[in-house]
Amino acid sequence: MEMNNIQAFFNRADAFASHNGMTITEVREGFARAEMDLQPYHMNGAGTVHGGALFTLADFAFAAASNSRGQLALSINSSISIFKGAKEGKLIAEAREISNSPKLGSFEASIRNEAGQLLASFQGMVYRKSVALESLLNESDR
Amino acid sequence: MEMNNIQAFFNRADAFASHNGMTITEVREGFARAEMDLQPYHMNGAGTVHGGALFTLADFAFAAASNSRGQLALSINSSISIFKGAKEGKLIAEAREISNSPKLGSFEASIRNEAGQLLASFQGMVYRKSVALESLLNESDR
Amino acid sequence: MEMNNIQAFFNRADAFASHNGMTITEVREGFARAEMDLQPYHMNGAGTVHGGALFTLADFAFAAASNSRGQLALSINSSISIFKGAKEGKLIAEAREISNSPKLGSFEASIRNEAGQLLASFQGMVYRKSVALESLLNESDR
Amino acid sequence: MEMNNIQAFFNRADAFASHNGMTITEVREGFARAEMDLQPYHMNGAGTVHGGALFTLADFAFAAASNSRGQLALSINSSISIFKGAKEGKLIAEAREISNSPKLGSFEASIRNEAGQLLASFQGMVYRKSVALESLLNESDR
Repeated sequence: MEMNNIQAFFNRADAFASHNGMTITEVREGFARAEMDLQPYHMNGAGTVHGGALFTLADFAFAAASNSRGQLALSINSSISIFKGAKEGKLIAEAREISNSPKLGSFEASIRNEAGQLLASFQGMVYRKSVALESLLNESDR
Repeated sequence: MEMNNIQAFFNRADAFASHNGMTITEVREGFARAEMDLQPYHMNGAGTVHGGALFTLADFAFAAASNSRGQLALSINSSISIFKGAKEGKLIAEAREISNSPKLGSFEASIRNEAGQLLASFQGMVYRKSVALESLLNESDR
Repeated sequence: MEMNNIQAFFNRADAFASHNGMTITEVREGFARAEMDLQPYHMNGAGTVHGGALFTLADFAFAAASNSRGQLALSINSSISIFKGAKEGKLIAEAREISNSPKLGSFEASIRNEAGQLLASFQGMVYRKSVALESLLNESDR
Repeated sequence: MEMNNIQAFFNRADAFASHNGMTITEVREGFARAEMDLQPYHMNGAGTVHGGALFTLADFAFAAASNSRGQLALSINSSISIFKGAKEGKLIAEAREISNSPKLGSFEASIRNEAGQLLASFQGMVYRKSVALESLLNESDR
């Protein structure tokens, strides 16, 4: 399964990310980038980007990165620390693998604005299922 | 500021939660409950509820609970462990304060389905600003 | 393998816990309690109990609780939030299972002083190996 | 307060780190390194380095790094993911600041063996008190 196909799969099949204006813009082995242009619906009650929107953007990059080897990986644990708000512009999450074993994988992700300022830091761990991602890909093609 | 007003504020002013079909259904001092009826747009690429949707529901309850004393509280760190998926029905997140100091507060939240099964466990910490939540309330009334 | 044996195994075989004055005082299925009497060597540079000592006490209870079913379980991820210091007296950590599957288990633990005040809250996840704890028990009997 | 003094302070005043054979070998602004030579007392019941020993080493580096600006900083939240065990040799934890504000600081730390293999990844957040670290330094000089 090629990287282009994995990227296309996530952009087509991840309904929650699509509903919230998020796109995977790059996938390599153990790496992925997700982006969103901030909209009024991304804000919280204090008028800045919602922690759930930041988390979801990082989680989306994490999902693409952790599935980049073609084996289905599911998030079991993740955490986010939030340093700075944002009201407009593009936010970019980049997820990188820091450890890989047959059943578990560990990733970290940064979320930055277009000026390169760090808004949040994310860590995530996946459990790898004995299922090829391709089986989902074909399913969603039908 | 009364609990009814805090509940109404979050349901009116939290745009990301509204955009994703989430509602605060109860606020008490140090406690809040948020609910969502699962829709197709809550799903991930594997066809089960997105980790970002689970996180956002818990984070929404956490925000209402941590602001329930009327002082503005902002999330600085949170984590989620996911145990079980869901494809339909109502999900309920309940957040409870476990520690409170003048500047910091710590909360835990559970996410359950209608059968009461635990889908995910969430922990969050807030930093309390020297600002009354009421100042935001009035602003969003304008 | 009986609970008494599991408790005895951890108190005999966990060298780091012994070196730091920690004892398992109860093990039940999915639960364990660990205790330590604070000593000068448990303190940090600020003169209060070290975060590493709090973490280790909770982690020790977590290890006993997560191995209480007799299958070897190894910690893959854990977190601690610290609310309050302590300089003397007994500290008690209680770990409880909140989710269990064939390969993964999730636990939370509290750390309290003798007055019942919450000093810290801990969460941990284990990966279950296809190895009986008994194989370690026998090994350390030799 | 000079970096040499901060390093000396932590090596003299952190009783729990000393009791467990840990030393700060470098402090720079927003960075510190801690080391330990594995001993039998660092092991857990499964015969590999204890999660509490890994955590404490990273926490010690984190404490020195977060206090490197000379203002007292206390850990409020931290997490560790463990990827690999170790039975002997030297372990090295390096903590780096990733975000800094007047009241809060966020750090990440790696723990590696002498071959450079990543054993664990650590994240931590501190709350900065309005107290100079020097006040502790002088106190412990008496």
